[in-house]
Formats: sequence, C-alpha cells, structure tokens
Amino acid sequence: MLDISLLGTGGMMPMPERFLSSMILRYNGRLILTDCGEGTQVSLKKLGWGFKSIDAIFFTHYHADHISGLPGMFHAIANAGRTEPLKLIGPKGLVYVVEGLRRIAAELTYEIEYIELDDENNEIFIDGLKISAINAIHSVKCMSYKYEVIRKGKFDPQKAIKLGIPKNMWSLLQKGLQVDVEGKIYTENDVLGPARKGIKVTFATDTRPFDELAQFAENSDLFICEGMYGENEKKDKAEENRHMLFSEAANLAKSADVKELWLTHYSPALSKPEEYFENAHGIFENTVLGYDGITKTIRFE
Amino acid sequence: MLDISLLGTGGMMPMPERFLSSMILRYNGRLILTDCGEGTQVSLKKLGWGFKSIDAIFFTHYHADHISGLPGMFHAIANAGRTEPLKLIGPKGLVYVVEGLRRIAAELTYEIEYIELDDENNEIFIDGLKISAINAIHSVKCMSYKYEVIRKGKFDPQKAIKLGIPKNMWSLLQKGLQVDVEGKIYTENDVLGPARKGIKVTFATDTRPFDELAQFAENSDLFICEGMYGENEKKDKAEENRHMLFSEAANLAKSADVKELWLTHYSPALSKPEEYFENAHGIFENTVLGYDGITKTIRFE
Repeated sequence: MLDISLLGTGGMMPMPERFLSSMILRYNGRLILTDCGEGTQVSLKKLGWGFKSIDAIFFTHYHADHISGLPGMFHAIANAGRTEPLKLIGPKGLVYVVEGLRRIAAELTYEIEYIELDDENNEIFIDGLKISAINAIHSVKCMSYKYEVIRKGKFDPQKAIKLGIPKNMWSLLQKGLQVDVEGKIYTENDVLGPARKGIKVTFATDTRPFDELAQFAENSDLFICEGMYGENEKKDKAEENRHMLFSEAANLAKSADVKELWLTHYSPALSKPEEYFENAHGIFENTVLGYDGITKTIRFE
Repeated sequence: MLDISLLGTGGMMPMPERFLSSMILRYNGRLILTDCGEGTQVSLKKLGWGFKSIDAIFFTHYHADHISGLPGMFHAIANAGRTEPLKLIGPKGLVYVVEGLRRIAAELTYEIEYIELDDENNEIFIDGLKISAINAIHSVKCMSYKYEVIRKGKFDPQKAIKLGIPKNMWSLLQKGLQVDVEGKIYTENDVLGPARKGIKVTFATDTRPFDELAQFAENSDLFICEGMYGENEKKDKAEENRHMLFSEAANLAKSADVKELWLTHYSPALSKPEEYFENAHGIFENTVLGYDGITKTIRFE
C-alpha cells in the first residue's frame, strides 16, 4: 500500500489555511516529497509522518512557491537526526538554485545528492518506487511526475515443478537469488506468474493541459492535478499564465481514465474552491477538491 | 504613535501555531519589518497591514529561522504592486545571503538596496525613525536593534517674540525653513521648547544577556527579548547555544528599567510558555508572553 498526503495546496502565495505546493508519499515507511513551498514543514509536523525518513525531494520547477520551504525543511530533517544522504531531483537548474538557498542551510548532518533530469534521463528508482518525468508546459522548464509501485507476479509452483527446480531451492528464487539446476541457471523471472496490478500516482502542476500528459497519467489510481482557476471564464488567464482551469484538469482525468482526481495549486484569489466544484465534477465524477492535509491510502487490488 | 506586532514568536522550527521570528512596526502608515522567518507573510496577511508599504527589512542575523521567509516576502511585496526600492539592512554577509535566496526571487518590481552595518556604521534613519544597532552575543555575528521616534520640543512663541521674529514668519520656522530677520538667520531650533519624550522599542533575539544590552534598551517603552527557555534549569543549555532564559530576559528588563517586556523566540520544545511565566514575572512585573499576532499601539505621552 501507498500513503499520499497533500501538505500544501496553494499557488503563488501561502494563505492562513493554505500553504504552498507540496505532496508526500509514504511507502514501506520511507518518505518521498514532491515540491516544498513555504509552510511544508508545518504541515508535515501536523501530519506526523516524521522528517528523518525523507529519502528524496522532487521539484516540478523552481518558482518560489514550489521550493521556498526547502531551507527550513533541510534543518528540520537534520534536527530529526538524519545522517543518510538526501536525494534532490528536478529539472536542470537544480544545483544552481539549491546551492543559493543553502547559504542559510550550509551545515547539515547529511549529504545532498543532486540528480538533474532531462529528456534522456527521466526515470529513477527510489525506495522501491519507479518515478518517471515528462516536460510540462509552463513559463519555465517544469516537469510532471508519475510514481509507480511495480508489482511482480506471484511465485508459480507449477512453473518451478515444470522446470524441475527442487523444492528446497524455491525460497532462494523467491528472495531474488539465482539457482543452478544441473548446470542450468534459473532466476525469479522463470517462476513468476503474470505481473499484478501495482499502484500509480501522477502529479502535475504548473502546466497547461496537453495530450501527452493524459497518456502519461493513463489509468492512474490517483491523478493530482493543478486547478489554478475554478471559473471557466478565466481560460485566457490560464493560457497566459500557463495554468489550468478546473474543467481542463477534469478533462485530462477523463481522457486518462484515472480512478480519482485531486485538484490542487489554487490561485490565492480562489478563496472558496467549492464554489466551482461542479466545473470539474460535471466532467469527471470522481473529482476531489484537495486541501492541506488531505490523505489517502491506496491498497493493492 | 507607533504600532508594533510580532508576526512570529518561534525559534529554530515553525510550529502549527507559532511561526518563526519576525516583528513589524508601523509609523505614519509606513512599515518596517525585522527578521523574516518562514510563515511571516502568512501572519502579515492575517494582520492586514499590507505589504506594499514595507520600506525596510532588518535582520538580526542570517540563521534560517530569521530569514527563510524572505523569498516569499519578496514576491508578496511585488504582488502588492511596490515599485519603490526596498532597503535590506543587517550585519555583514547580507549581500551574500540574500543574493543566494534571490535565485528563486530574481525578477521583482522594485530594486533592493543593501546596507551592511558594522561597529562604525550602526545608526540609520528610515521613515522618520532612528534605528541603532549593537552587536549581540550569539554563535554568529548578530545584532540587536533599537527603534526610536525622536520628538522635538513644541514651538515656543515666547522665544520667537524675545528674538523679535515677526509673527508672519513663525509658520516658516514651524515648517523647518530658516528666516532672515534684519540680516540675522533663525531656524526652528531657536524657537523650540525642550525636546519631548518620544517612543523607544528595543528588539533583542539570539543573544546571551550582557550589560551593554541593558544600557542600550534603557527606558524603552517596549523591550522585545528572546526567551528561548522557560526553565531556570536550562542555564547551561542557554549558555552553550547562546540564548536566554525567561529569567535572564526579565533581569535585563529590570536593569534597563523598561516599561514592558515581551518574550519571544521560544524553543520548539517549549510548547506552553505560560508554565514558566512566573520565572520572568517574578523578576519583572510587566512581562508579557509574546505570541504570533500580539499587537500594541504606543502613544506619545
């Protein structure tokens, strides 16, 4: 199972009840953060998942509302006693931006590992999750991310028997080791049934909608997508600022045939997203208005 | 009159109900901020004094809990439509630190003017206030500040009559102009009564107590002082980390003979400062436990 929470659902400026963009995933007790706007550490403290197990922080881009909470987060992670390296991952520019911010977070208890993604280098495995990136359409270089729990098939005793693998070797295969049966080498892959459905979460913010994003998010269990503006009349503004309407996010969710849509990254002017809920819900039924602290557990089918 | 509010009263890490160090002054409609930890812009939004009129931001030092809210504050001030330059003032290192943070706040609608203070250059006049600085005793270079409304004496008609200045010239003198009476030049200073009591606010955080600080704060209408630890048993910790106990802040207030003491910059471990109130109040009666949003107006006597 995979736990997900939105730590901040605001765009541009934090509000008293709405901090800036941030999402956290928990898988097997390890934490992966995506974006870290001002207030993220406060929301994470409320959530209670701790700071020490954050192994990686992904950034969609480097506008301040997505990264201004990083210096404080660095200190919070250090105060929690982390000594293992922390991975930072994002589009080009990562090192330049973060090294600037580190002027107020120079001395930490752990190393920082930078990974800058690009068109060739857009897949990474962390804590048992496969994370893929695609370029978004924003005013600056920006990426959308997909987080997948890839689930292997079950061990199939019939296959093992057919291949003549002795029973006392099965547990070795199940542990991922290879076995030698009369000079023939077998691995786990030889004895697994068909792959089982895993879990897929897609996170897209600060982008216009585009076809490839719908393909990228296809069949996600959860699609977390920006909805900067609720009103359909703000289409021109959304196009100009490279953001989305609620209705555009809902259309993406529909095209991608996802299970559930969470809206996030609301404009500071959008004080009551619920007033425009129908603009998304009318297009995609399983729409949820994200809010700071919204949490969900996705279990394997 | 001078309005004062604490926007954040926490040290080290922001808490759900306690943001990081920040204090704001309002005088004649203009705003001066001191320190800008994470969450400052959220508290200022709640306070409702606006962002556009912030003419200067002072920094005691550059530990993250005193400056991590600056990139967001830069954007908030720009979004409010400011075009006049913004002064940033603090100890040496200001330019290096802020230029690092500006990697996520590069494009603003106004210029930044940097003023680095030192032992020779430790007084500045902004928006009609005189601000003085002294070196604090902390683990890094750190300054405490005093903000004063200097109040001239009243126009004294007897003096003007004695000097033979015609009545129709009095208003010129009152406007600060000089007048020529039969070849003799007179200014405002020649016709003013004794200087009247102004307003004095002292702000000291991230420092051990020291005698010069008590002299510096002498007779302040309001002394805002850190109280990192409530428990008297934490003296060793306070000395080691270069912070203060409630009781040490209260002793300073008593020595300085100030009118009122506000405690601030509580340790994250100090979840209920009120439990240790008596440790300060027993020494200095007019002690107030600061909290985010505490506001006071000081009027001329």
